[in-house]
Amino acid sequence: MPLVEAAELRDVATAVLVGAGVPDEHAKLQANLLLEAELRAVPSHGFLRLERLVARIGNGVASATASGSHDWRGAGFLTVDGQNGLGPVVAEAALEAICPAAKSHGIAVAAVANSNHIGMLAYYAEAIAKGGQVGIVLTTSEALVHPFGGRQALIGTNPIAIGVPSADGPFVIDLATSLVSMGEIHDRAHRGQALPEGWALDREGKATTDAEAAKAGAIAPFGAAKGYALGLAFELLVTTLTGAALGRDVAGTLDADQLCNKGDVFIVVDPVSGQGEAIARYLDLLRHAAPADGFDQVLIPGERGRALKAERLASGVPVADSVWTNMKRLRDAALTKRGI
Amino acid sequence: MPLVEAAELRDVATAVLVGAGVPDEHAKLQANLLLEAELRAVPSHGFLRLERLVARIGNGVASATASGSHDWRGAGFLTVDGQNGLGPVVAEAALEAICPAAKSHGIAVAAVANSNHIGMLAYYAEAIAKGGQVGIVLTTSEALVHPFGGRQALIGTNPIAIGVPSADGPFVIDLATSLVSMGEIHDRAHRGQALPEGWALDREGKATTDAEAAKAGAIAPFGAAKGYALGLAFELLVTTLTGAALGRDVAGTLDADQLCNKGDVFIVVDPVSGQGEAIARYLDLLRHAAPADGFDQVLIPGERGRALKAERLASGVPVADSVWTNMKRLRDAALTKRGI
Repeated sequence: MPLVEAAELRDVATAVLVGAGVPDEHAKLQANLLLEAELRAVPSHGFLRLERLVARIGNGVASATASGSHDWRGAGFLTVDGQNGLGPVVAEAALEAICPAAKSHGIAVAAVANSNHIGMLAYYAEAIAKGGQVGIVLTTSEALVHPFGGRQALIGTNPIAIGVPSADGPFVIDLATSLVSMGEIHDRAHRGQALPEGWALDREGKATTDAEAAKAGAIAPFGAAKGYALGLAFELLVTTLTGAALGRDVAGTLDADQLCNKGDVFIVVDPVSGQGEAIARYLDLLRHAAPADGFDQVLIPGERGRALKAERLASGVPVADSVWTNMKRLRDAALTKRGI
Repeated sequence: MPLVEAAELRDVATAVLVGAGVPDEHAKLQANLLLEAELRAVPSHGFLRLERLVARIGNGVASATASGSHDWRGAGFLTVDGQNGLGPVVAEAALEAICPAAKSHGIAVAAVANSNHIGMLAYYAEAIAKGGQVGIVLTTSEALVHPFGGRQALIGTNPIAIGVPSADGPFVIDLATSLVSMGEIHDRAHRGQALPEGWALDREGKATTDAEAAKAGAIAPFGAAKGYALGLAFELLVTTLTGAALGRDVAGTLDADQLCNKGDVFIVVDPVSGQGEAIARYLDLLRHAAPADGFDQVLIPGERGRALKAERLASGVPVADSVWTNMKRLRDAALTKRGI
């Protein structure tokens, strides 16, 4: 895989989006979200999505310019109609509205519908925590996960991110309620690798270790019955606040031609307890705790991704050859279109 | 095990608490929380705790009369100093304050410190959802769980409950971020049963299937690294908002003589999307989804507990002989003390 400088990746992606009619600042933001995923080694949320985004704009299911309309249902509840805008653009506009509201009122929530894929939730949770506030971010997705004890994909991968400020910087978790991502299944299928047992079911709902068969089937929830319960609760919580579609009715984050009808929820709380130092000490205690047999160390969630990001910002980002070639092709086409 | 009528259990527990100086209405509420756990077959949160509660009041680490002092840090953020009051009493007073605030402002949070064990979180989440609002409830606990890859108990069991209204009544999840409860470990030790592999470590941090050895060790987080991340995030989120103690500094929910310094967080959101019917239909679809090999049906979280509760309300509650005998002894002593 070619190593490409982060700035170059961002610039190419930005040019592609600008070519599709996205205003400069919005294009940079969307490109940053795609880059963030590459930096943290989550390529399923990275530049692989760029061509599809452009196609979505061309097909009229994503707006190049909308940033969402805002309707306050109370001092702490912002309803956002994303107007089919780019996910990060709508999300940032919502956060710019609710973070000050949380500062004034102690807590605020944005319930976002009709917005496109917002990318890695950690990006938002980290930004909120950097601002000294607590962030909880939820989003729903296409039904890819089977209920515990079920044989068909009926629930989204429904991730959660939580950001908490500490004296050593933000503590951030970001995890899907599926055992693995569909991206990981596709990647294994591409490499011809088998799946570990318990990861997935095939189209008929039979347990399979064949990644190709799993692509048409369902991923297991993480943590068996408990992870299923959490993923389902997040699906219901998000739909209750946003009016988003449920289960198999969700579309628009993996295709190029359907309106995106999932929902996003951002909750921002203003901490008041001055526990930043205590949290940093506690995390340090965990970081240096004796590892169990078979482990080298106790890891703090999010830190491996952050270290990888720093390394890739310094030394370049490995991007799949096909993805990088395609990005440059799209950029060249965009520049030609604009007569540059 | 004797089958005892729910009303009789509640009355006996109420009499015991009144004997310890708890006002009548508060005693009924605390008794109801203990009963709720028995009804849902979670005896670790049930009447087993009654004698210890009375001892805590006698030892001056729990107040028989306090219901917490309230300090609004904004229209949506209520800081509660529990004044060492009974957990359910402090929790109910907090909810009575923030549910109307959520109605007015769209969202409100109560951050509770210095309160005793609040019992089953499902009780509160269900009550909030019955009122047509969305509830998220978190509480921390003594460090009983080892970090993923660690060998020592450093994190609380840190449960979460979420309640969402639907046209068919509340949807409620309530789950600890530990793989099992310490109550389950104690129960297996009591019966001389082995633990399944992966549940627990012994005092030295070695994997064990010996329940007796696990009592002095650590329980695994549920869902491996993801459950660890969630449990840790909840520990930090709660301490940030409440100022509660962290990790091994937490005390007071399992002993009779230490002040309780864990924290509780209640978030209430007012739904606006009218998805009650859609949620009921979706849950019905899940309920009737084809089960996987080895399963009889797909279960909806919370429904087994609710069915058990209905059955036990109708036919009586099985209570451990020793627990029921002790309850009656405590009741008789309380009545004698009051000269009845």
